[in-house]
Amino acid sequence: MMPNPSLDLEDRLAIQDLLFRYARAADTRDVAAFAGCFRPGRVHITGPGFEVRDAQQNIDTLASMFEWTMHKVHNHEYTVRDAQAQGYCYCVATHVKREQGRRVKIDWHIRYEDELVRADGAWRFVRRHLDVGLIETLPLD
Amino acid sequence: MMPNPSLDLEDRLAIQDLLFRYARAADTRDVAAFAGCFRPGRVHITGPGFEVRDAQQNIDTLASMFEWTMHKVHNHEYTVRDAQAQGYCYCVATHVKREQGRRVKIDWHIRYEDELVRADGAWRFVRRHLDVGLIETLPLD
Amino acid sequence: MMPNPSLDLEDRLAIQDLLFRYARAADTRDVAAFAGCFRPGRVHITGPGFEVRDAQQNIDTLASMFEWTMHKVHNHEYTVRDAQAQGYCYCVATHVKREQGRRVKIDWHIRYEDELVRADGAWRFVRRHLDVGLIETLPLD
Repeated sequence: MMPNPSLDLEDRLAIQDLLFRYARAADTRDVAAFAGCFRPGRVHITGPGFEVRDAQQNIDTLASMFEWTMHKVHNHEYTVRDAQAQGYCYCVATHVKREQGRRVKIDWHIRYEDELVRADGAWRFVRRHLDVGLIETLPLD
Repeated sequence: MMPNPSLDLEDRLAIQDLLFRYARAADTRDVAAFAGCFRPGRVHITGPGFEVRDAQQNIDTLASMFEWTMHKVHNHEYTVRDAQAQGYCYCVATHVKREQGRRVKIDWHIRYEDELVRADGAWRFVRRHLDVGLIETLPLD
Repeated sequence: MMPNPSLDLEDRLAIQDLLFRYARAADTRDVAAFAGCFRPGRVHITGPGFEVRDAQQNIDTLASMFEWTMHKVHNHEYTVRDAQAQGYCYCVATHVKREQGRRVKIDWHIRYEDELVRADGAWRFVRRHLDVGLIETLPLD
């Protein structure tokens, strides 16, 4: 059942770290950290009606649309095979924007379908695909 | 303080995996995977006013009542003693249903009180008891 | 990239446990457990407009203001250097209070900025600082 547990533990925690680093990079508008979650020069995110290939552009869009975001990571299950991994994580991405002077909260309930690769000792995303199960909009003021 | 940490790490991550697998089985309506979270033929879930003993029936009920669910797992603390474990996890189970053509979101804030057993190298639930601290209902449309 | 992974794993899981123990102590109104998350006699929490130095007083305040709370821990990233650590975790603290007979839910979206120290084999908080990014109030009844 557990062929190589000690290796598994390091990989799985490194992958978990990557999930959190991605969230932090998005929430702090850190372009370099966001790009660093993917292979060099190869940001790749797909979702309903959009495709992202550029870290700067993605962070700029996020910053221009929302006052504040919080990407809350939940459940995560990944399978590692050699230097590749695939799996999913649950995430509720909370976005706050201002519309006509009033704040609105938009919660995206996301299941990220991820492909990852390990190179030079670090796990990075090859691609993240967003399965957005629920978008909830709520006035705050 | 840490008598056998390497063993602890494997057990605790295996238990964490079980929490996520249960959530995924419920959310993807996977009867076999759901049943596989418990001892063979012995599904056992209790909660306020209900008792579940059958995986098929439980998944059928979930599927007939809700369009979509997401069982988001949070904090989790388990104590392992030999081949047994007990502890709790926090979970917000988000359910979307349709009432008179309008979607409604129902969030259950759950503290699962769990008993687990390890057999054949795998952790499984003996019983899950739901302490539902808060049920929140919100129209989506 | 991973200088001493096995040590890292134990430390990081011990720190994760501390995050969960703090949440549980707050949610179950357990003064001794709450105090035990900090160095002996040195509870220290700061946030917008408040400073907490006393476990009993903090739990009493929580208990008097709210019928029920749930501190849901999400993303967490900590850096360990010798017997010290610092980092952050995301937490949504859900509070339920009663106002004029009606229940109200108050969600605090918190980024805890933490300093920790390891002594006698256990990690404890030196100080937690709450960066509260969003407070959301919602009537329940």
